[in-house]
Amino acid sequence: MKQRVKSLASRDNPHFKALKKICHNGHARRAAGIIVLDGMHLVESYTESCLRLGSRLEEIVIADSAQDKPEVARYLAVLPANVPVTVLADRLFDELALVRSPSGILALATRPSCPTAPDAASDAVLLDGIQDPGNVGSILRSAAAAGFSQALLTADCAQAWSPKVLRAAMGAHFLLSIHENVDLCAFINRYCGRTLATMLNAASYPLFSTDGFDGIDLAQSMRPIAWVFGNEGQGIRPAVAACVSCCVRIPMPGAAESLNVAAAAAICLFETVRQRGWASPQRVP
Amino acid sequence: MKQRVKSLASRDNPHFKALKKICHNGHARRAAGIIVLDGMHLVESYTESCLRLGSRLEEIVIADSAQDKPEVARYLAVLPANVPVTVLADRLFDELALVRSPSGILALATRPSCPTAPDAASDAVLLDGIQDPGNVGSILRSAAAAGFSQALLTADCAQAWSPKVLRAAMGAHFLLSIHENVDLCAFINRYCGRTLATMLNAASYPLFSTDGFDGIDLAQSMRPIAWVFGNEGQGIRPAVAACVSCCVRIPMPGAAESLNVAAAAAICLFETVRQRGWASPQRVP
Repeated sequence: MKQRVKSLASRDNPHFKALKKICHNGHARRAAGIIVLDGMHLVESYTESCLRLGSRLEEIVIADSAQDKPEVARYLAVLPANVPVTVLADRLFDELALVRSPSGILALATRPSCPTAPDAASDAVLLDGIQDPGNVGSILRSAAAAGFSQALLTADCAQAWSPKVLRAAMGAHFLLSIHENVDLCAFINRYCGRTLATMLNAASYPLFSTDGFDGIDLAQSMRPIAWVFGNEGQGIRPAVAACVSCCVRIPMPGAAESLNVAAAAAICLFETVRQRGWASPQRVP
Repeated sequence: MKQRVKSLASRDNPHFKALKKICHNGHARRAAGIIVLDGMHLVESYTESCLRLGSRLEEIVIADSAQDKPEVARYLAVLPANVPVTVLADRLFDELALVRSPSGILALATRPSCPTAPDAASDAVLLDGIQDPGNVGSILRSAAAAGFSQALLTADCAQAWSPKVLRAAMGAHFLLSIHENVDLCAFINRYCGRTLATMLNAASYPLFSTDGFDGIDLAQSMRPIAWVFGNEGQGIRPAVAACVSCCVRIPMPGAAESLNVAAAAAICLFETVRQRGWASPQRVP
């Protein structure tokens, strides 16, 4: 059975107009319950995980010139026949894609839902008002690489399933439980492990030992850890900072004590990996 | 003496047109030797450093509604009287600014030049074809916070002095020697310390000890270190990887072995800080 392939070259085509709306309008995407995956790597990562995620591939969109790319041809060859494929003239495809050098493939899929509540006994990253989609995506990617299993986001974070966050996370969405619109204080209050907030505050505990100061023991009893990272400008909300177990600062010998939040998160998450000696993150029974 | 303040409300004004060209056209900026600093933090960091940088403030541009902000008023009060100030109607200012929520202040300045050649005896970060301005800026910021003194960029990296890189680096430009269009192999071959390249390659040395594998000793004899970070998709060029002292991988226990390059750089730079025990980075005499 041949895939249902449709070719479009007119900007006035209603289907193209609908695609454009879904790609560029967050409200339309959320109302339709659709996510947009941009690029071959992301489309393949999604396709491997979609059954487990309870998500369904709705449509593949490819640029006319991308049909000849071996990786695109290989992907289409194994795509279930009931998934519609739309081939767009390159200039139309460029209007949909997120980045300047588009890889020539997009997928539309139903938005995965997170059926379970956040797990108060597993490692977690908690994002408090992080607004840049690139930062949210990079932190999700680092969390998945560090073996963390869940991410909790406040309502004022960038939308976790937006195309920009999906792109920056490079498939980490499909390895994590992602919970949005979370009340972090309520989660922290019932959390079974330690909650650590990154702060520049001099009174905070150093992440690692420096002359005369002991660093924090992240391997302690192998208890689960929830790292909290805050807004790019304001940092962590005082109400959230007030309920964590411990505030941690990254020792910075340079003249500027300033790190991008996703860089700070990567340092904290991989210092956790280092201190634990690559033991699996623990889940309290 | 009162500052020369000019107010503009017309899109047809030639001075506004010239500003718009400088803000949005990289060729025009480079031809004029001008950099654009967007936001109060960046403008202040620049102003503190401009004498040392051999750079001159050419013009301050503020949004009409930003005149009343205390931090803007404080800054204008101490600004040398010979620096022209242009006040733009908000809707015109929004056409110049880089981000959605502009802080209401921009500065135009002469582009700092780096009078010295790269120092083959000091710590360095070497960027090989990193194309995303946010990644380049975040790495410069992490390097300055880690106490590194210089950054070397290949010709195919994002332009180091572009407004987006400046914004992402949050003032790190003014704490580092930045060298663009560098032949990394030539620099590595005359470098007095160790050059370390981050690779996913399993044959690489782990950045820190994991079960059964010793991590790399970054404090070794306190020799200077040059870290090499590569392109977002392709990684480090084979020719560059072939001339480094050692390839290093970040141990990743998660299901995805994948990090954003700026996140990977932050982990490597701060593992260097940790192992050295915050001793000042060494310069070979």
